[in-house]
Amino acid sequence: MRTTEYLLATQKETPADAEVISHKLMLRAGIVRKLASGLYTWLPTGLRVLNKVAAIVRDEMNKAGAIEISMPVVQPADLWQESKRWEEYGPELLRIKDRHERDFVLGPTHEEVVTTLVKNEVSSYKQLPLNLYQIQTKFRDEVRPRFGIMRSREFIMKDAYSFHIDGESLEQTYQRMHQAYCNIFERIGLEYRPVIADSGSIGGAVSHEFHVLADSGEDDIAFSDSSDYAANVELAEAVCTDARPGASKEMTKVATPGATTIEQVAQMLSIDSTACVKTLIVEAAEDAPHPFVAIVLRGDHQLNDVKASKHPLIASPFSMAKEEDVKAHLGCHFGSIGPVNLALPILVDRSAATCADFVCGANEDGQHFTGVDWERDVSDFEVVDLRNVVPGDASPDGKGTLQIRKGIEVGHIFQLGDKYSQAMNCGVLSESGKHQVLQMGCYGIGVTRIVAAAIEQNHDKYGIKWPLAIAPFEVAIIPMNMHKSHRIMETALKLYADFIGSGVEVLFDDRKERPGVMFNDMELIGIPHSIVIGERNLDNQQVEYKNRLTGEKTLINIDEVIAFITNQ
Amino acid sequence: MRTTEYLLATQKETPADAEVISHKLMLRAGIVRKLASGLYTWLPTGLRVLNKVAAIVRDEMNKAGAIEISMPVVQPADLWQESKRWEEYGPELLRIKDRHERDFVLGPTHEEVVTTLVKNEVSSYKQLPLNLYQIQTKFRDEVRPRFGIMRSREFIMKDAYSFHIDGESLEQTYQRMHQAYCNIFERIGLEYRPVIADSGSIGGAVSHEFHVLADSGEDDIAFSDSSDYAANVELAEAVCTDARPGASKEMTKVATPGATTIEQVAQMLSIDSTACVKTLIVEAAEDAPHPFVAIVLRGDHQLNDVKASKHPLIASPFSMAKEEDVKAHLGCHFGSIGPVNLALPILVDRSAATCADFVCGANEDGQHFTGVDWERDVSDFEVVDLRNVVPGDASPDGKGTLQIRKGIEVGHIFQLGDKYSQAMNCGVLSESGKHQVLQMGCYGIGVTRIVAAAIEQNHDKYGIKWPLAIAPFEVAIIPMNMHKSHRIMETALKLYADFIGSGVEVLFDDRKERPGVMFNDMELIGIPHSIVIGERNLDNQQVEYKNRLTGEKTLINIDEVIAFITNQ
Repeated sequence: MRTTEYLLATQKETPADAEVISHKLMLRAGIVRKLASGLYTWLPTGLRVLNKVAAIVRDEMNKAGAIEISMPVVQPADLWQESKRWEEYGPELLRIKDRHERDFVLGPTHEEVVTTLVKNEVSSYKQLPLNLYQIQTKFRDEVRPRFGIMRSREFIMKDAYSFHIDGESLEQTYQRMHQAYCNIFERIGLEYRPVIADSGSIGGAVSHEFHVLADSGEDDIAFSDSSDYAANVELAEAVCTDARPGASKEMTKVATPGATTIEQVAQMLSIDSTACVKTLIVEAAEDAPHPFVAIVLRGDHQLNDVKASKHPLIASPFSMAKEEDVKAHLGCHFGSIGPVNLALPILVDRSAATCADFVCGANEDGQHFTGVDWERDVSDFEVVDLRNVVPGDASPDGKGTLQIRKGIEVGHIFQLGDKYSQAMNCGVLSESGKHQVLQMGCYGIGVTRIVAAAIEQNHDKYGIKWPLAIAPFEVAIIPMNMHKSHRIMETALKLYADFIGSGVEVLFDDRKERPGVMFNDMELIGIPHSIVIGERNLDNQQVEYKNRLTGEKTLINIDEVIAFITNQ
Repeated sequence: MRTTEYLLATQKETPADAEVISHKLMLRAGIVRKLASGLYTWLPTGLRVLNKVAAIVRDEMNKAGAIEISMPVVQPADLWQESKRWEEYGPELLRIKDRHERDFVLGPTHEEVVTTLVKNEVSSYKQLPLNLYQIQTKFRDEVRPRFGIMRSREFIMKDAYSFHIDGESLEQTYQRMHQAYCNIFERIGLEYRPVIADSGSIGGAVSHEFHVLADSGEDDIAFSDSSDYAANVELAEAVCTDARPGASKEMTKVATPGATTIEQVAQMLSIDSTACVKTLIVEAAEDAPHPFVAIVLRGDHQLNDVKASKHPLIASPFSMAKEEDVKAHLGCHFGSIGPVNLALPILVDRSAATCADFVCGANEDGQHFTGVDWERDVSDFEVVDLRNVVPGDASPDGKGTLQIRKGIEVGHIFQLGDKYSQAMNCGVLSESGKHQVLQMGCYGIGVTRIVAAAIEQNHDKYGIKWPLAIAPFEVAIIPMNMHKSHRIMETALKLYADFIGSGVEVLFDDRKERPGVMFNDMELIGIPHSIVIGERNLDNQQVEYKNRLTGEKTLINIDEVIAFITNQ
């Protein structure tokens, strides 16, 4: 491709309304353009990347035995009424009416359509398992679209749906898809983690997210330094195998005037925050015997409210108690509450439960206890996993310790079970001749989002550093002042023809621009290899090679350029 | 692909609600399934065909210098208000509101979006010409979707838009796209014609449609037997170079009681219908001096109302006059009207104008004139091209004679001129430094419709006969009673592996089905080549080859099968 016959659409200025680096670079490098809030046009350079991502996804889906189909973007409302999601799904589901005033939706996902298809087309267990996928435009009417195509309204998703006679078959396909997802991110060349996830409102039991690791990620991912274990911090189990030492001190009440935080108490008593526990008061579940529940954590730990809200005594959705209500009930402020003689159900985090001789509030403003022992001084409590894991925690699989990194969710796979097949009566005749409702799995990848995540993970101050597998072009030819030098033009044209002949995707910058403009554009676009043609090197029959990813620069003989690039 | 790991979805019964053969076969052969009126899911076999069509279209677009982008399906209403199509476009334009009650449309076409893009991204004549295309889902809310995906609401279109500094550049790109379209239909392997077309409401002057020829087509295409000339019959010029012979008879009034049609008059007078003229009365244009206009055609010719409605005296949209109004005005019924002494403007078709000694109505019920001569007997008339061409007419380009075939429109290209660029102020700085509004072309192909048109043109009573370039699979392996014969299974498995190894797209029918079921399914799906493995032929180390397109059957040595197929 010649730049003069292309829509390069690079921009020098950083757009004012772009918040994250991928969005800024996607605008500056001519990847996308905003049409309206959450709606983007993919420019030629962006579409080349997007098509490469889609091709890798498609190839791995086919290898994993999934079969490609294409379902309509516009879906009739009656299917959504059948699954009850017409009512359950929030306003992200864009409901529309056609010219005859019939109700439709713009599909955010296709469980209803595919379940209906399989219900009509598959009648025998012999036709199972069946795994159908598509790569297609989806629409979710986000209330506040942001971060460019990272959270847009129209986007491209690969969505696969598998159907099974039993849970064992589902588990097999689920593992196969898990592996296919790993293959996809390996091939694209991204640092990623499959993490144990909450299956949330989609339903079902087992679920994994796939995260591209990047400092700008919205999710915290905990992963083992010695095994494949990885989980969203929301879900990562905090294990604590330490035995609790016996009590060595007497419980003593001490005055702690004005000290209401762990830091203040620890400083006043000259102890470490790990020797204190903190007691948080949260709303109890509706039918619980007390209005509140006390949660006790070690002084340096943070509450994990996803874990807490799963406890039957605690209200879901989770809510902290209001301080004035607690004061009225217990007679003291938040900063002085402790588990000794506390007339509330007490849930103690596993780590806090191994503290001995600890410090806690005395349920009296300005007073704390020291030398407290769980067995001796606290009447009744339950030990539960309630905190966020921290770096250095033992990995829940018993192998190594946990690290924490930021991640961008680019894929999510679910074992759905029979949530949709039951609601829509999707079943087959089993081997024993009985009607049997199917087990389902679903498997999503945000194809457009991968492009943004790849940039978040791979960029520098000059622009994008595309992994080779998804780079819009493999090599750029940058001839310096070609329009003034016959031999530079001749060399550039020959190299361009030779690259095309060798099947290398090449961008030939044949604009009448200053070399600096061309260098900047090619670095911004992030083409992995550049060949710079200049007068001085041509005297030695050489050109300069630049590697965008490593920064390497070297001189190459002209007749070795094609081989040098194709051997990379 | 093994059929047991695939969604074959063939059906024995012809679906009741399918009207045209392509729709019936697309349902029976597992190509598509209806989700709702005008909304179809593409099943695996169908999507394989569709993707092949799209790949050929994409390749030819790239070769023609067009650059691929991807614009959103959902478009903001303000752009459509800017181009005035928000008001002009009928209810096929589906107008929707998002969660914030803002107006959007589901894109039926993308002139507004692409013109805005180019307006923002292109500033100099040096960046032109520019030809941008996409292959994408479109939506048109047809009042009565029918013929399956031939006239569906959601469909896939390749739409390209070119931008130019002047008409000469537009003409060059238009010719290049015209050639690219020819290449596309050649490569797919369809009999087609590029035809001169009316540019209709899209605007602009020059326009061609591309039609796939098929007996079930909705359009009549006239084309020369000796040149490239082809035009929709609506537009094909009826040339008439015959000289009119002089009058040889006296004009005589004859009684023709009860004869009100050309056929009845011709029979009663024992003459040919070509010796009669018929006079039709149509509504006149609003500001015309008379309420009606008379149109005179030779007795065997048909009125072309597209041509008629372009005459300034005639009402547009075209409308025949009501008989009771005409009776009140002229004093006789339709069947007795003629041009002699007629107090209306008279438009005479070119062919009718060369009739001598002709018969026509006498403007008196039950009476006709014979031996009429235009010069001598009719006071005032204008000669115009007003009829449909018929087979045998001279080709308007002077080369050969016209034939007429039915066609299905699958592509349409337009020279738009500045209709959109003017309305949306899309211009650049010209070489002389002035702001100049751009010239535009637009170029559409119905990618999904091509699949249906290919079936309309290529089928027999057993099913589809895919052209090789778009067949879902190249070859089918049909092992007879494989599950009872070890050596048949072994041969089938080896051939299957060898085909895959040779990069041949193969469907291996490994179902436990009777041979007849397998033969019928493979013929229905229309796979070009079949290899049938049976006990008897295996005794001679042979298998049977069947060609779906030619009907050819032959025995091949097993070790020559792969070479035989790959050399086809």
